[in-house]
Amino acid sequence: MLVIGELINGMFKNVGKAIANKDKSVIQKLAKEQAEAGAGMLDVNVGPAAADAVGAMKWLVETIQEVTDTPLCLDSTKPNVIEEGLKLIKNKAMINSTTADKEKLDVLLPMAKQYGAGLIGLTMDKKGIPRDRHQRSEFAAVIISASMEAGLGHEDIYLDPIILPVNVAQPQSLEVLEAIREFSLLSDPPPKTVVGLSNVSQGTENRSLINRTFLVMALALGLKGAIMDPLDKELMDAAICAELILNKHIYCASFLDAYRKK
Amino acid sequence: MLVIGELINGMFKNVGKAIANKDKSVIQKLAKEQAEAGAGMLDVNVGPAAADAVGAMKWLVETIQEVTDTPLCLDSTKPNVIEEGLKLIKNKAMINSTTADKEKLDVLLPMAKQYGAGLIGLTMDKKGIPRDRHQRSEFAAVIISASMEAGLGHEDIYLDPIILPVNVAQPQSLEVLEAIREFSLLSDPPPKTVVGLSNVSQGTENRSLINRTFLVMALALGLKGAIMDPLDKELMDAAICAELILNKHIYCASFLDAYRKK
Repeated sequence: MLVIGELINGMFKNVGKAIANKDKSVIQKLAKEQAEAGAGMLDVNVGPAAADAVGAMKWLVETIQEVTDTPLCLDSTKPNVIEEGLKLIKNKAMINSTTADKEKLDVLLPMAKQYGAGLIGLTMDKKGIPRDRHQRSEFAAVIISASMEAGLGHEDIYLDPIILPVNVAQPQSLEVLEAIREFSLLSDPPPKTVVGLSNVSQGTENRSLINRTFLVMALALGLKGAIMDPLDKELMDAAICAELILNKHIYCASFLDAYRKK
Repeated sequence: MLVIGELINGMFKNVGKAIANKDKSVIQKLAKEQAEAGAGMLDVNVGPAAADAVGAMKWLVETIQEVTDTPLCLDSTKPNVIEEGLKLIKNKAMINSTTADKEKLDVLLPMAKQYGAGLIGLTMDKKGIPRDRHQRSEFAAVIISASMEAGLGHEDIYLDPIILPVNVAQPQSLEVLEAIREFSLLSDPPPKTVVGLSNVSQGTENRSLINRTFLVMALALGLKGAIMDPLDKELMDAAICAELILNKHIYCASFLDAYRKK
């Protein structure tokens, strides 16, 4: 699976402060730690409070690229913030994210194409979060079809069925799991799916348990990636073990260490 | 889900010794501990070494029923051992197990009917373990169809797709998971499935992690029960959390405690 490290996000106090103070060491430490723990990509989000979002994104991209080649996932609701980041990208990047709204797709699909970037498509539109698996699939179909028209490869699109916190929208968790399965029927080869994992446990008292349980369930149903905390060792153990059971890497007695050394 | 406690099995040294010495305290402690930890049923297996298997089964059933009303799952390859146990059962019981072989079904289905017992059907025959999900489904169809002919209710049959250890038959784990999903298409309402969970981690160095990861994946695909160790707290936490995500019990901040107190 693709582990997208979530920790470089201005909404976290330490990161928000580092952005404000241009303190590279905090960001670079998080970048290296996440990559070493198994992140194959790093999410980069300037956070809601950044005074100069474009400047902050550019500084984050440059700061991270000084210490790691791990691809970046540029995370903003503002297309211009993403584009200014993309201009600085050395490796392949991902755009996080578009919705199924035409005005978003019309801007972000050509941008992904122009910069050779991947794109996360949230299966929702401006009217809000979908109510069930079927509505999620309808939005997914819109995104896939628009991506194909825009000339993006199958490999470049990740659908995000949008997890809600289990404590406030409990029935939605099952809808998201079943949506992951339903998405796989939308094209051949099946589209890839990604989730913003930590949202499922927002506001609960058992965050790590809920996160890893949901992740393992979603992997069983075909999930291909997650924006998550790779420094949560139990979460990473669960993900590695789930992929072992799915026959994605070969069993050996020390399979957890073997995966991490890879 | 139905948790069937696995610990009263003569293959475990302490239980084998207790059976040989007619030491009730060991068995009764295991019965009470498993029931308190969340087992809704207790597996009872005299083990391979019991000199008098019928006598041992009768003694176990009586010994356990002295301290708990938790239903029992009588586990033996010998139909007469099961029948002598069934004669003593106060509560509803389960027979563990038949295969898809006609000579087994012809004996065990009428026995289940006569004693009002449930029945676990292993999706295999005397030629051995199935090679993939589809062969498992074929055996499942044989068992379901024979059960219906024998007049057993849908509620009384649990299909067991047969887990193999991930360290010796790694690709089979995925086949079992997908078989659980495939079985659900065989009848309406869908048949129930159960697994002998601990087998997946036999001979590995990470037994608890592999057990709970597999269980959570199987629950995501529709599993309804497992023969497992209810005293493994992390395993029970994972099961409770998976059922929370599947919306089987209502979220509250202390959902782990709330489930256990139920």
